[in-house]
Amino acid sequence: MAAVAATLDLPDLAAIRQAAARIGPHVHRTPVMTCAAIDAEVGAKLFFKCEHLQRVGAFKARGACNAVFSLDAESARRGVVTHSSGNHGAALAYAAQRRGIPAWVVMPDNASAVKQANVRRFGATVRLCAPTVEAREAACDAVARETGATLVHPFDDPRVIAGQGTAALELVEAIDDLDAVIAPCGGGGLLSGTAIAVTSWRLGIDVLGAEPANADDAARGFASGTLEPLAATTTIADGLRTTLSARTLGALRKHVRAFGTCSEEAIVRAMRMMFERMKQVVEPSSAVPLACLLEHTLDVTGRRVGIIVSGGNVDLDRLPWV
Amino acid sequence: MAAVAATLDLPDLAAIRQAAARIGPHVHRTPVMTCAAIDAEVGAKLFFKCEHLQRVGAFKARGACNAVFSLDAESARRGVVTHSSGNHGAALAYAAQRRGIPAWVVMPDNASAVKQANVRRFGATVRLCAPTVEAREAACDAVARETGATLVHPFDDPRVIAGQGTAALELVEAIDDLDAVIAPCGGGGLLSGTAIAVTSWRLGIDVLGAEPANADDAARGFASGTLEPLAATTTIADGLRTTLSARTLGALRKHVRAFGTCSEEAIVRAMRMMFERMKQVVEPSSAVPLACLLEHTLDVTGRRVGIIVSGGNVDLDRLPWV
Repeated sequence: MAAVAATLDLPDLAAIRQAAARIGPHVHRTPVMTCAAIDAEVGAKLFFKCEHLQRVGAFKARGACNAVFSLDAESARRGVVTHSSGNHGAALAYAAQRRGIPAWVVMPDNASAVKQANVRRFGATVRLCAPTVEAREAACDAVARETGATLVHPFDDPRVIAGQGTAALELVEAIDDLDAVIAPCGGGGLLSGTAIAVTSWRLGIDVLGAEPANADDAARGFASGTLEPLAATTTIADGLRTTLSARTLGALRKHVRAFGTCSEEAIVRAMRMMFERMKQVVEPSSAVPLACLLEHTLDVTGRRVGIIVSGGNVDLDRLPWV
Repeated sequence: MAAVAATLDLPDLAAIRQAAARIGPHVHRTPVMTCAAIDAEVGAKLFFKCEHLQRVGAFKARGACNAVFSLDAESARRGVVTHSSGNHGAALAYAAQRRGIPAWVVMPDNASAVKQANVRRFGATVRLCAPTVEAREAACDAVARETGATLVHPFDDPRVIAGQGTAALELVEAIDDLDAVIAPCGGGGLLSGTAIAVTSWRLGIDVLGAEPANADDAARGFASGTLEPLAATTTIADGLRTTLSARTLGALRKHVRAFGTCSEEAIVRAMRMMFERMKQVVEPSSAVPLACLLEHTLDVTGRRVGIIVSGGNVDLDRLPWV
């Protein structure tokens, strides 16, 4: 695996800086929040990078904008396509609208009306397909063939990884003397970008990955060095049900210091804590780093720790503690 | 009524500036948020002053701190007492803890365990009484007689009003060229302080009051010039179920430009909009200004408008749309 990973293109700090400049006009420089009550609970000083306040409500706007604004004029004119039932689809639709080019988003035909509407409100075309990996890849390929649109993968793309890394870059530039930065891990785009940005930016800041125990393929793959399968996707952290690619596994093996995993109960508890104490509406995936601290699977006692809050798109009619 | 009001002490801008300096070490200078999606919905440019991110989760920390830190050493030593089942009780407990003096909070014996715990976690003593105005005033008097503690009324106190006015002062100092500032109105402490601060600070900024139609004593009193009774307190905006005092009515008659009222449905819709679009956890009272804009009882089309978001202490097990 390591040999394969080394051959796969990954962005460096310069590429992440270029991404920051490229996407600057199109994304928010999100604030960093602190919360004394949560600090007291975990025994560390936490700095929450608020990507739930990002455009489209998630960090995904960064990677999508970097990919879309990296395209040459001729490719851009033909548009972009992706498959996503979540934040990446909306983010790509947003990015394409900002550039004034067409976007197609392939979604499983069981995707909720709300999720479809989130994509359509930015002017993208939704293509429904059967809810299988094969069907969505076939649908993406079909759109690309018909239209000449460029595929923008949710995470297995150096331009997307570079864009996602800009959140951590803003964080370390804003907060002095961080000891560590934690990001949640699904397909690994956010964590790869975070790890490359932070460890290249300055020595002495650890990057830690956080994952639900119910979707721990990255933690296992990080330990074993090979892509590990995910038997079932039962976590409520719906943004983290994806498995790594060879590219993101290579980045994590090289730049991440350790992984923590957490129970579903801890995710709910951490999410509610962020609602109650920070007064922030976050999605379950965003609560996974704090959940790992609550369960002590990542040890940051007494340290200054950045946390990437990945997004805030949660179904308010079905909050997990109600 | 106007003659009476004129004799009641009210703070001026200088007193509000002094309050800001006095409470500075003990409260947050809260951020101001904007939201393009809500701006598009209401057709105005809104600037939300985030007092739900204030200490104890509400603007009440400002008035309580100003009252507590205004006391001379001898009075302070004997402590403070108030009656409140909500944010003011927790705020006074917090302020007293910061000064290292005792606090007693009289609460109705049907106050929830959560509300009692919110007061006790700052070291205050809770005194339970029957849930009537007479019982709570008798209980407050009894504590004051026994202990020599100073009563800090939730709103009918110039020091409290001056403290509450500091939020609006920060807002107008931070955001250029506001046309108007809207605050919700319960007992009128926040709105009085806001109105005095803003209209004294610069000419040309209107202060507008926002109230649930189900608790519209202030809107009626503002029109009639006399204190109006409130038959029933059926609004979900539990922070706004209080009636004005002669002091706050006098301040509002002098400094507020207009009142808007809103339906319960609009409060729920506005509150949910602030959760969904701004990703902020706010209590129903905080949503009342936006609800008045959604129902067009306050007209701010095309203007730059500050909104004081009063607090974020909401029961997450019983969100009103679930």
